[in-house]
Amino acid sequence: MGAARPGSASTIHAQGTALNTTLPVLTDISSPALTTALQAKINNKTKPLGSLGRIEDLALKIGQILDTTDPVLAEPQMVVFAADHGLVARGVSAFPKEVSWQMVENFLAGGAAVSVFSKQNGIALNVVDCGVDHDFLAGLPSGAQRPGLMVRKVAGAEGGTADASVLPAMTIAQCKQALQNGMDIVKSLPGNAVLLGEMGIGNTSAASLLLARLTGLDIDVCTGAGTGLDAPAVQRKAAVLREVLTRHADVTEPLEVLAAIGGLEIATMVGAVMQAAHERRVVVVDGFIATSSILVAHALQPLVLQRCVFAHRSGERGHEFMLQHLGVQALLDLGLRLGEGSGGALAWPLLQSACTMLREMASFASAGVAEQENKPTAKV
Amino acid sequence: MGAARPGSASTIHAQGTALNTTLPVLTDISSPALTTALQAKINNKTKPLGSLGRIEDLALKIGQILDTTDPVLAEPQMVVFAADHGLVARGVSAFPKEVSWQMVENFLAGGAAVSVFSKQNGIALNVVDCGVDHDFLAGLPSGAQRPGLMVRKVAGAEGGTADASVLPAMTIAQCKQALQNGMDIVKSLPGNAVLLGEMGIGNTSAASLLLARLTGLDIDVCTGAGTGLDAPAVQRKAAVLREVLTRHADVTEPLEVLAAIGGLEIATMVGAVMQAAHERRVVVVDGFIATSSILVAHALQPLVLQRCVFAHRSGERGHEFMLQHLGVQALLDLGLRLGEGSGGALAWPLLQSACTMLREMASFASAGVAEQENKPTAKV
Repeated sequence: MGAARPGSASTIHAQGTALNTTLPVLTDISSPALTTALQAKINNKTKPLGSLGRIEDLALKIGQILDTTDPVLAEPQMVVFAADHGLVARGVSAFPKEVSWQMVENFLAGGAAVSVFSKQNGIALNVVDCGVDHDFLAGLPSGAQRPGLMVRKVAGAEGGTADASVLPAMTIAQCKQALQNGMDIVKSLPGNAVLLGEMGIGNTSAASLLLARLTGLDIDVCTGAGTGLDAPAVQRKAAVLREVLTRHADVTEPLEVLAAIGGLEIATMVGAVMQAAHERRVVVVDGFIATSSILVAHALQPLVLQRCVFAHRSGERGHEFMLQHLGVQALLDLGLRLGEGSGGALAWPLLQSACTMLREMASFASAGVAEQENKPTAKV
Repeated sequence: MGAARPGSASTIHAQGTALNTTLPVLTDISSPALTTALQAKINNKTKPLGSLGRIEDLALKIGQILDTTDPVLAEPQMVVFAADHGLVARGVSAFPKEVSWQMVENFLAGGAAVSVFSKQNGIALNVVDCGVDHDFLAGLPSGAQRPGLMVRKVAGAEGGTADASVLPAMTIAQCKQALQNGMDIVKSLPGNAVLLGEMGIGNTSAASLLLARLTGLDIDVCTGAGTGLDAPAVQRKAAVLREVLTRHADVTEPLEVLAAIGGLEIATMVGAVMQAAHERRVVVVDGFIATSSILVAHALQPLVLQRCVFAHRSGERGHEFMLQHLGVQALLDLGLRLGEGSGGALAWPLLQSACTMLREMASFASAGVAEQENKPTAKV
């Protein structure tokens, strides 16, 4: 896939002038002519009209993103954005904070769910240290790198966000740096599809906060069990999150919200999503945390949804509300609530199937198969 | 996978004594010790308890079928059972009967949905002519074969079933032969997983009839659009099917029901399912037609369900009732209503993921990851 990517020369200043971040401007990629061509190609495949259900919708979507009736998904890139959260000090997670760095090591060693599913399905995997409270290069010579790891810590937030119940999670400058890091990471990666993954003990709290603030839903319905809190612990978590929202009651502009109550991995992911969308890569969105980054991106530029495929409906309470708010439907519904990108990796073969359907299935004419009697002219 | 298969020496006579068919007797393969070992292994993987949702259930199931905590799915075999239906003369399908043989040629040429999805996912594909009204070997030297095609026509039903509104679709002898063919086909195939596929213009009618007779549901709720009938045509179809049920009102024993109102591809599939279940192969069940064969098998020996994974919930009306009757849940819900085995091929990577999860994911101990605080001892 050597096609030149669109440049990112056209830029805007984020709506929150204080941020002054250079994010790409997304153009409307919908094309009635291409949609018609794709739908006609799908309808002429040797199958009853519409009988491949949402695989057909997926084929339409991927064809539109990649601007072709013969889409080839090339060099898919799973990027796992990892960071720590100051709010964990308030007891919002069932796991200790150290699990963030331990799981990063597990990703790098190939032992995590996202590792094995990505390997199974031919997806490259990179982990980004966006602000994990750990030095993954300790003991290595200066300038050394580790395969599969990108260290993109943010100045002044090397060990994670501040406790958002006391301070903004990030300063404006830190949030801006994280967004830029995400954009730069995608620019550095090959392929035409990016799968979003994440790791960060405490990050269901950040995602719940973003959901509440960006949609207006009460924090109680946005708060779930995360990695496995029991009911009383979920109640305590919701109470902490309510405090956080009160602390930042005056913050409503999307990027300022992201800085105040988000996470470094979520902010980096937002930058990556905007860059990938700008380049017309297919963005495969995992569960609750990954979708929270889409909430932010969508609040900035709704056209981002044209480039997004939602891999699964999470078992985490709140994810369904995100999907409803965005008006989208996910592919899988298997009660997954692990994150990491595991749901995206599991759903990936369905995206490939949508493309093989378009590229490889015979048409009625080419196969010499009789068509439906009284075949409708439109999709039924 | 060179392990010896269980022999099929232990046999029963089918409950319908007139049939006198030698079907294998299924033993109860549930093992509390293995279940405990599998669950413990799953719970110790580096993820919150239960967070892989139904992938965990799937791993338990496949582990139990293959009798191991390290399941390896080997040489999966898609078998597309094809036949014609005399009832098509009554106008129950939106497609002409010739599409059955034309689609078999499409399978063999690699152009159908099940062809491209099977190829994509590394699944071998064979098509069985169980009674298609066509000579696929015409013009070839006597004894010649075609790669990927098994001709297993049933004596006296070479061109399909009789019109079940007039006669039994098959004679008892024909049904018995089809069952034996299915058993023999599975015996001849390598691997430890069989994916069920089918082709036969008119076979949603046979499946609706089996659903109605074996569950007692009214034929109206069992009848759907098939390949794409409009609402008045569905009503006409249901009226024809009601006639058929009246014609065979006294037939209630499962195999006699199969002979009277089923199809040659469904009967062959029932034999294949029973043999695969007996050999402890994983049986991947596609949509409405494939599940109708499981209804018959389940009516004979409920233990067959221990070996079955249901790939998807079909958009064809009636499939949900089949799943409810069997008390099972399908993996995908994408509005598929194509059949052929396409849904099984689409779902296959999820079965592989369940196995890679068991085999390749690290445990908390092996990865050096801290466990959940106050980790429950049972699956949450």
